[in-house]
Amino acid sequence: MTSSNSEPRALSEFALIAKLFAPLAANSEGAFGLKDDAATLRLPPGEELVVTVDTLVEGVHFLRDDSPELIAKKALRVNLSDLAAKGAQASHYLLALSLPEWVGDAWLTDFAAGLAEDQRRYGVTLLGGDTTATPGPLTLSITALGSIPKGRMLRRAGAKPGDLVFVSGTIGDAGAGLEMLQAKTSGLPAVAREYLIQRYRLPEPRLALGRALVGIASAALDVSDGLIADLGHIAEVSGVRIVIDAPLVPLSAELSGLWGRGTQGLLRAATAGDDYELAFTAVPAARVAVADAARASGVAVNEIGRVEAGAGVELTDEAGRAIAVARAGFTHF
Amino acid sequence: MTSSNSEPRALSEFALIAKLFAPLAANSEGAFGLKDDAATLRLPPGEELVVTVDTLVEGVHFLRDDSPELIAKKALRVNLSDLAAKGAQASHYLLALSLPEWVGDAWLTDFAAGLAEDQRRYGVTLLGGDTTATPGPLTLSITALGSIPKGRMLRRAGAKPGDLVFVSGTIGDAGAGLEMLQAKTSGLPAVAREYLIQRYRLPEPRLALGRALVGIASAALDVSDGLIADLGHIAEVSGVRIVIDAPLVPLSAELSGLWGRGTQGLLRAATAGDDYELAFTAVPAARVAVADAARASGVAVNEIGRVEAGAGVELTDEAGRAIAVARAGFTHF
Repeated sequence: MTSSNSEPRALSEFALIAKLFAPLAANSEGAFGLKDDAATLRLPPGEELVVTVDTLVEGVHFLRDDSPELIAKKALRVNLSDLAAKGAQASHYLLALSLPEWVGDAWLTDFAAGLAEDQRRYGVTLLGGDTTATPGPLTLSITALGSIPKGRMLRRAGAKPGDLVFVSGTIGDAGAGLEMLQAKTSGLPAVAREYLIQRYRLPEPRLALGRALVGIASAALDVSDGLIADLGHIAEVSGVRIVIDAPLVPLSAELSGLWGRGTQGLLRAATAGDDYELAFTAVPAARVAVADAARASGVAVNEIGRVEAGAGVELTDEAGRAIAVARAGFTHF
Repeated sequence: MTSSNSEPRALSEFALIAKLFAPLAANSEGAFGLKDDAATLRLPPGEELVVTVDTLVEGVHFLRDDSPELIAKKALRVNLSDLAAKGAQASHYLLALSLPEWVGDAWLTDFAAGLAEDQRRYGVTLLGGDTTATPGPLTLSITALGSIPKGRMLRRAGAKPGDLVFVSGTIGDAGAGLEMLQAKTSGLPAVAREYLIQRYRLPEPRLALGRALVGIASAALDVSDGLIADLGHIAEVSGVRIVIDAPLVPLSAELSGLWGRGTQGLLRAATAGDDYELAFTAVPAARVAVADAARASGVAVNEIGRVEAGAGVELTDEAGRAIAVARAGFTHF
C-alpha cells in the first residue's frame, strides 16, 4: 500500500489505515503486509489472470450519508460481478482510495469492517492499494483479480444465431429500489420495499454460477446498465440480433406487486439497471447443462429469448409483437 | 473498458474514448479491444504477477491547466517507477478515469496521445479500464502490471547490517522544479530552470536498472517522498539503521547552482521528494555488479551510505557528524 504525494494529513490517519487495512491483506502472501511498493500474485498452473477495474464516486454512485459498510461492499461486489460474468475464480483486489477531509476514523473503521465481511463471504483478500487526499468527492477504484484456465474466459463476443438467451435471478429490483430511495414511488408493504432497496444497495455477484458456466455459455456479461442495454453489448460485439420474449423476463413478487407484469412493467424492469445478474447465451443442446449449473450454484436461471442473425435487441410481447423501447438502459459516456 | 452507472454524458464522448483508447490496447491480446467486462493476462512460465496502483488527483498531484499529455505521462510513469523499483518487467496497465464536466474532446485526445507516446517509450500497453463522471476533480488511477521470476521481487525488507546504500541519478531536482513552478525560487538560467521543472513534470522510471538489480539489491524502492523518508521505509521494514554520507548524495549541476552543495542544500535535496530514482542496498561484494547494472542500463548509480544495526536514518556531514533533520520528506497519511 503506497501513498503518493498528497496534502499533509494527520499521521494518525495513515497509521489507522495501515492498522485497518493490513489485516485485510493478512492472507495475501504477495501483499507483504501492505508495506511494499507493489504486490505479487502467483497463478495456478495452466491459468491466466482475469482483471477488471471499477470506480465509485460520491454523489454519482453513492451518497455521503450512505453507510460506509455498504459503500465498501457495493464497490467490491460490482467488481466481483464483472469477474463472475467472465467465469473467473475471484481471489484478490487492490483498493485506491481518494479521501476528502470529512472522512474520519469512524468512517474508515466501518468501511474496513464492510470489506472484511465481504472478503469472508466471497473468499477474496486485499492485495494492495493506494490512499491519497482529494479536495473533491470520496472516490474509490477497485481492481479485482482472479484467474481462469487459459483461453476460457466468457466473453461478450461468441453469441451465435440459434443460441438461447438466459438471465439469472430477477430483473428490475435494484432499479425499483433506487426509485424508492429517491422517494419517487411508495405504497408497498415495508418488507417488500426493504427487499427492493437491498437489491439496489447490495448486489450479489454470481460467482459460483459464472464459474459453472465456463464451457457452457457462448457469451456472457453482468447486467449493470439494464437488461436490454447490456444484451445490446453482446449483440454488438458478437455481431448478432437478440430477441427477448418480455413475458419470460423474471420479476420478483415484490417488483410485480409494484410495477405489475404488463408490458410497461416489464419494459421498466428490462431497462432499469444495477441488477448485477448474469445474462448469457448458450446453444439449445446446453439447456440441461445450464439448468445443472443453476442448481449447483443455487441461483435461478431463466430462458428469456433467442439469438438471430442481424443486429440489435428486440423485446416482444406475448403475441410476438415488438415492444417499442425508447431508452434501452443507463446512458453512459 | 467498462463504464459504471454514471450521470449521463454526451454519447459522443463515450464513443470518443472508445476511439481514442482502443488503439492503445491494440497490442494487448487479452484486452479484447476494450469491449469486454474484464481482461486476461498470461504470465511467462516461472514468473509471477507484480501489480501496483497509484491515483493522481487534480489540485493535489497536478493542476487543471497542466498539459494533458504531461498528466498522462506522469500518471503512467509514477506507476512504472514502482514496478522498476521492484525489478519487474512492466507490460500492461489499467486506467480508471473519473472525468469532470470540463474535460472535453481536445483534452482527451491530447491525454491519449501522451499515453501513446509513453507506451512506445516503455513497451507497455493498455489492458483495460473504466470511465465515470465525477462532480469533483479529475481523478485517475492507474494499475500497472508486470512480471518477475517467482520469489525474486525486490522488497523494502531485506537490507542487512554491513550492506551499502546506493541511489540512481540525482536527487532534489524535482523538488526544486516544483518550487520554481510555485514561483518560490528564481535567479537561475532559463535552461537550468527548465531542466529542473522537467525533472518534476516527467519522472523517468528506472525500469532497466531495476531489472538489472534483481539478484543484486538486498532491498529497493523508488524515491517519491524524499530520500531520507524513503530510506526510512527500508530501515523500518528491514529492521535496520541507515547512515547516509550527505556529501555523497548526487546533485545535478543545475541543482548545485541553485541550492549549493553545503549541508543545507544537501538536506533540502534529500527531503524534497518526487525524484523517482531508485534507492537500494547491496552487500559490499556486489559493488562491481551494481556498477555493471548501472552501466548496462545507462543510469548513473552512486554509493551514498551504509546499513547498520539499529533503527532510523541518519544523515552525516563530511566530518561524520549527524545533521539534524527536522522533516524527513513528504508527510503522507
